Amino acid sequence: MTLDAVLSRVDTDFDASVARLMRLLEIPSISTDPAYAADCDAAAAWLAEDLTGIGLTASVRPTTGRAMVVGQGGDGGPHLLFYGHYDVQPADPLALWDSPPFEPRIEDGPRGKVLRGRGAADDKGQLMTFVEACRAWTAVHGALPCRLTVFFEGEEESGSPSLVPFLKDNADELSADVALICDTDMFDDTPAIVTQLRGLLGEEIIVTAANRDLHSGHYGGMAANPARVLAGILAGLHDDRGRITVPGFYDGVPPLDPMLRAQWDELGFVPGEFLGEVGLSQPAGEEGKSPLEMVWSEPTCEINGMISGYTGEGFKTVLPAQASAKLSFRLVGTQDPLAIRESFRAMVRDQIPPDCSVEFRDHGASPASHMRTDAPAFETARQALSREWEREAAFIGAGGSIPVAGYFQTHLGMDSLLIGFGRSDDAIHSPNEKYDLASFHKGIRSWVRILAALSA
Amino acid sequence: MTLDAVLSRVDTDFDASVARLMRLLEIPSISTDPAYAADCDAAAAWLAEDLTGIGLTASVRPTTGRAMVVGQGGDGGPHLLFYGHYDVQPADPLALWDSPPFEPRIEDGPRGKVLRGRGAADDKGQLMTFVEACRAWTAVHGALPCRLTVFFEGEEESGSPSLVPFLKDNADELSADVALICDTDMFDDTPAIVTQLRGLLGEEIIVTAANRDLHSGHYGGMAANPARVLAGILAGLHDDRGRITVPGFYDGVPPLDPMLRAQWDELGFVPGEFLGEVGLSQPAGEEGKSPLEMVWSEPTCEINGMISGYTGEGFKTVLPAQASAKLSFRLVGTQDPLAIRESFRAMVRDQIPPDCSVEFRDHGASPASHMRTDAPAFETARQALSREWEREAAFIGAGGSIPVAGYFQTHLGMDSLLIGFGRSDDAIHSPNEKYDLASFHKGIRSWVRILAALSA
Repeated sequence: MTLDAVLSRVDTDFDASVARLMRLLEIPSISTDPAYAADCDAAAAWLAEDLTGIGLTASVRPTTGRAMVVGQGGDGGPHLLFYGHYDVQPADPLALWDSPPFEPRIEDGPRGKVLRGRGAADDKGQLMTFVEACRAWTAVHGALPCRLTVFFEGEEESGSPSLVPFLKDNADELSADVALICDTDMFDDTPAIVTQLRGLLGEEIIVTAANRDLHSGHYGGMAANPARVLAGILAGLHDDRGRITVPGFYDGVPPLDPMLRAQWDELGFVPGEFLGEVGLSQPAGEEGKSPLEMVWSEPTCEINGMISGYTGEGFKTVLPAQASAKLSFRLVGTQDPLAIRESFRAMVRDQIPPDCSVEFRDHGASPASHMRTDAPAFETARQALSREWEREAAFIGAGGSIPVAGYFQTHLGMDSLLIGFGRSDDAIHSPNEKYDLASFHKGIRSWVRILAALSA
Repeated sequence: MTLDAVLSRVDTDFDASVARLMRLLEIPSISTDPAYAADCDAAAAWLAEDLTGIGLTASVRPTTGRAMVVGQGGDGGPHLLFYGHYDVQPADPLALWDSPPFEPRIEDGPRGKVLRGRGAADDKGQLMTFVEACRAWTAVHGALPCRLTVFFEGEEESGSPSLVPFLKDNADELSADVALICDTDMFDDTPAIVTQLRGLLGEEIIVTAANRDLHSGHYGGMAANPARVLAGILAGLHDDRGRITVPGFYDGVPPLDPMLRAQWDELGFVPGEFLGEVGLSQPAGEEGKSPLEMVWSEPTCEINGMISGYTGEGFKTVLPAQASAKLSFRLVGTQDPLAIRESFRAMVRDQIPPDCSVEFRDHGASPASHMRTDAPAFETARQALSREWEREAAFIGAGGSIPVAGYFQTHLGMDSLLIGFGRSDDAIHSPNEKYDLASFHKGIRSWVRILAALSA
């Protein structure tokens, strides 16, 4: 009963695990703000030291941005890479926090105790589930059950500028049989492995007409209005059925795998409940698609922002000189972000009338990630998760994008097991972020079981 | 040669006329800012005293806002009402003025000397053309040539909240055979009488979906996007030919009077030049309409502003909770602003999908003004103007709105002769406002001729 011994160790050491996480949470390792660079260094050093303490050979690796932390340990069996990020979102707006964001505390939450503080769920609490699992394992067995590389990034919340160069420069060291990433949520009470993530193409359109805002009485009716031009372009991006009209857009969108469809159907997703939390009631996506397909396996085109002319209080009869919109396309399957960008821009240019010009800004382009779930590690991990939570774990999709999983595929030829214990009410990126203590505790235990199963 | 004597008097007294105008310009009578209330009072008092000095019975009339000035004089002949406004726009942004806005000075301008300062053209310089004409007339003849009521407002730049109540309360005193308004421009070098002004309907649409901005990855594709809904509404306001699609919108839009069409054609308007000044090159209005029709006699629907979601630097993958737009409709003929508002709102409501709601804000509604140019005063004044400028004066339209002309029609049953000497480069409402000294001088002489002709 070696597994039981490790799980017992997790339970008896849990208060100490919480105390360690709280120390990490006290470090304001905000990566987007250079004022916190030393705090990022401190968090990296703290982690390298902690990994060293449980027997890994760990070091802080400088980059041109925030440092990486890499630890190596174990021997024999499969080679696993674990990824997490130690940087956190800024805490603004501070006034909306009920307690200081970097003074973590234990409070009552909707499902029991929670640990409140910036980074509790995203991603310090999640990455420490894995570290604590390793600690318990080595405490009981004196060694890890397999070869392990631990890899922590410090720039995830600021666009990961150093990540791809670092992966390329250290490909030999970081390439493993499979990656483990702990930065996702459960599906309500169901433990989940995210097996597909949508890609993201960000675009900004700026339509310009006159060289300054005009008086709508003196010019209105004769001068081109860029807001009207932009509205026409934006309105034409979907057809009456909700299909996106960019030529070639659906190239590479695969049909949904029947096995996944069956699993998703079993999740008992109630769109009215999900949408009800944000004041909505019914799915507004493409006709004929199920609600989970709309967010997990169908591509989207959404307006994220737009602005033109006078938007203050009251009224001003200006004819705007400029109108702009930010749009994002969520991508699936093998949709090619760069081909779609070109097609989109050509489509927009075709709609620019005389006296108007258009300018584009590039806000990133990453393809979707789909894991090869027929690799044995996926089912093995799913069963281990199911045992811990006493509930069938599910392969699910995610509407958002986790670029690192795509980079691991592209640059290290490695799929990822995206297993996380976050909950939809964790308020990541928002004031009063929290992590359920149950997520932390059973998360640690889950990794113990997964390590054992993958190493068997 | 009594007319020549008065014109000579204007010429010999011109330096003194300029000096008086400069004294008026030194008073910062900004009506929108309560801090300048005493200055508005001072300007009103200065005008009442000046009118008294040339033999009118003049007084400052308090309102709940800024005071009115009313002067009565003359006897016999037609009864004329002259209107101008003594309040001015704020001088912000001060940094963009080349000299202090309330320290008027004479400078060189593109067509000769100009008087620079806030209010030089809008409207103190213009209203003083009339006062100086009366002064010259009474100096030569000892009396005015007809019965005259002079009426100065002090709230024109702040929406004229007291105007309609004042007109109603003093209808007997203010009702005349015809009104004279000096607050408009010439048409390049051609003296002009504005005989039609577009009305204005201001509307704001606010479309709301979720109760907060959503993550476009987690919700995109399933949740309603109000920016997309708004774009569709805005894009549908015009058809392919540029016609406005609001049901019943064109009810009351008259065909253009052939006499006006002929006069407008003779103006030699070159759209490329007019639009070239603002970086445009070609008319973008309804197919089949001439450029001057587009701004003078055709109604419009223009987006004045719109905003939704994230509009800052960079990118944020939010799905906006709200999207809003400010729109204005310029109206002509007998288009009914309130009927159009109802029809517009009904049309918008019909396009609001499930889970979205719409709210409207009312930003004013005034009908167009069309003068009955077959009344003899119009042709009489046009000929007098033509003699002064040695160039055929034209009846023109104006794309903007001058609400007082409509109020005079509605509440006093009186048409207006809108005769002004402003130039398109006067920079009214902007830094470095100016008035050509030629406009001031020949403006005074024009009113002398018009007074003589209308009184004959």
